[in-house]
Amino acid sequence: MCTLEKRGHVYVLTLTGSGEHRLNPTLLTSIRSHLARIRSDTASDPNRPAALVTAAEGKFFSNGFDLAWAYSASTSAADRRRMTELHRRLVADLVSLPMPTVAAVTGHASAAGVILALSHDYLLMRADRGFLYMSEMDIGLKISMVDYFDKVLCAKIRDAGTRRDVLLRAAKMMAREGVRRGLVDRAVEGGVERVVEEAVKLAEEMAMRGWNGEVYKKVRLATMPEVWKVIGEEEGEVAQSKL
Amino acid sequence: MCTLEKRGHVYVLTLTGSGEHRLNPTLLTSIRSHLARIRSDTASDPNRPAALVTAAEGKFFSNGFDLAWAYSASTSAADRRRMTELHRRLVADLVSLPMPTVAAVTGHASAAGVILALSHDYLLMRADRGFLYMSEMDIGLKISMVDYFDKVLCAKIRDAGTRRDVLLRAAKMMAREGVRRGLVDRAVEGGVERVVEEAVKLAEEMAMRGWNGEVYKKVRLATMPEVWKVIGEEEGEVAQSKL
Amino acid sequence: MCTLEKRGHVYVLTLTGSGEHRLNPTLLTSIRSHLARIRSDTASDPNRPAALVTAAEGKFFSNGFDLAWAYSASTSAADRRRMTELHRRLVADLVSLPMPTVAAVTGHASAAGVILALSHDYLLMRADRGFLYMSEMDIGLKISMVDYFDKVLCAKIRDAGTRRDVLLRAAKMMAREGVRRGLVDRAVEGGVERVVEEAVKLAEEMAMRGWNGEVYKKVRLATMPEVWKVIGEEEGEVAQSKL
Repeated sequence: MCTLEKRGHVYVLTLTGSGEHRLNPTLLTSIRSHLARIRSDTASDPNRPAALVTAAEGKFFSNGFDLAWAYSASTSAADRRRMTELHRRLVADLVSLPMPTVAAVTGHASAAGVILALSHDYLLMRADRGFLYMSEMDIGLKISMVDYFDKVLCAKIRDAGTRRDVLLRAAKMMAREGVRRGLVDRAVEGGVERVVEEAVKLAEEMAMRGWNGEVYKKVRLATMPEVWKVIGEEEGEVAQSKL
Repeated sequence: MCTLEKRGHVYVLTLTGSGEHRLNPTLLTSIRSHLARIRSDTASDPNRPAALVTAAEGKFFSNGFDLAWAYSASTSAADRRRMTELHRRLVADLVSLPMPTVAAVTGHASAAGVILALSHDYLLMRADRGFLYMSEMDIGLKISMVDYFDKVLCAKIRDAGTRRDVLLRAAKMMAREGVRRGLVDRAVEGGVERVVEEAVKLAEEMAMRGWNGEVYKKVRLATMPEVWKVIGEEEGEVAQSKL
Repeated sequence: MCTLEKRGHVYVLTLTGSGEHRLNPTLLTSIRSHLARIRSDTASDPNRPAALVTAAEGKFFSNGFDLAWAYSASTSAADRRRMTELHRRLVADLVSLPMPTVAAVTGHASAAGVILALSHDYLLMRADRGFLYMSEMDIGLKISMVDYFDKVLCAKIRDAGTRRDVLLRAAKMMAREGVRRGLVDRAVEGGVERVVEEAVKLAEEMAMRGWNGEVYKKVRLATMPEVWKVIGEEEGEVAQSKL
């Protein structure tokens, strides 16, 4: 489902298998448990070099919430709320992780999968394939348009025209257009492995800057106050983020 | 004063006559009643393709509030407040309209007329003539700088330097510069009719995407939470906008 | 420490000497007293042409808070709070000054010195030397990351990727990159004097636009509502800024 390995000072979290990596409670919980391990791993020494890369195997980075599961007969409204709540907490985990984070978008990312990618500090994307796609308009479903989505999108896509095209026009944005419009940091040529390699290289470089993880976390939160106001639930966290 | 016609699936609202289309209570009420008709027209079936184009005849798209009327001897402070209140509601009508909206800026737009244009999803503008002009600084009047203006401008003009030039430097921005700086989606060559044609074509294309109007409205409001917080007055509307 | 002279209609405030212009209570108070003089000078006639240029002698525009002073044995936590409070008020003075303001960044600007520069309407910078540098990550100190910093940075650096590079990557940004990324209005060739000359020329041009200072101030505050919400302390000021 998902694995965690260490390359140099970089934690590489990989969504495994050739599926769509649909975000249901099982996958979300698995990702979060890996992030919790990274967090406890580094808690004792915030000055130890560390960084995170999130990648995925197969054609998809993540195709969004698991709608088939969400709307099956045996799934309740409470289950669906739990799914979005776990996703919200995953976003909170990422934006409060005390180290640089890089998304290696190796394939399609849709809806909640786009939000997952955008919740990293850097977004590298395969140049020849895959797109970022907020599918809400085309699907006509409201489940994925939960309240913190717009905060993440507003924080990460500052250009109003781009935000409109991504959300209201349901544009399918490939890597080069993403770079041109400021959502994507780099379009990487040469397939999945190259994207992950480049992401790890960037992450290692950031890890070696000698930054204190707790300072890093606080400065990151200061760059996105509106996001943290919505998703930073624990009072201690919020207070802390105010420095 | 203003007319409404249907071209294909597109509602075309036109400010008629060769005047400045100054926004006084009479004109504002007329525009709003047409929008109300569109809204009730489409309420029964949110899946029916629909879109709006707003255009104007003559040299002006709209030269802003009707200051001559506002400061005539027979106009009271309450009348002026009613004028800005009606404009505020017009902006609310537009940003909550359950269909794509396109402004065909066929001539000069000033102050409250710029805000009117920016309240549409897309802004097409005549290339050879006309400008967007926030005239507050040059006129030295505060009436047009009402509280929701800055929210619309912040939502639509994300670049701080452009916002400064538009507001604080009172720049007169023609179409091509508007495109370059992200306020205008397209500079259209060839006169008034061509701008309207292009706007209708874009609107028809958006109408045919098969989107549900209510979903469209909700996603739009999610792209501009700060605007809606200020202008979405009815409690039900606000709650609904939170999905 | 700092001087004030008048060139044409332009007030030129200069941080004198070849030092780092570290912002401690003494220097902050000196700058603020000059701004107070400008304010009282122009209060009687808001229509008189006026503008401000802030410049500095030597290799530094300002290297940020005076950390050597702040962490010396004789300095208390209350003294440090006073230092950040005075800086906050200086930012408030600048963004509420009833005239156009231009920063002539003639050398390095770090941390609180960057915030000082960004608190002006226009930022001109020497092309061949000097950088803007938010040093928080590299220094690992939290003192300079006080709550209003992120509001100023969010208001002035709208592009999310640039904000990340400035804050989270601790980029040292020279003038040309600053122009390209929208933080700097102009990279000026030819040394310190040329930067100041260009700044004075721009300021004089703005002064001669015939704008009313009080209107100018109100329109400026409308372009940065989030900043003013945090730093505009006096109730009267805040109420006034709502027009």
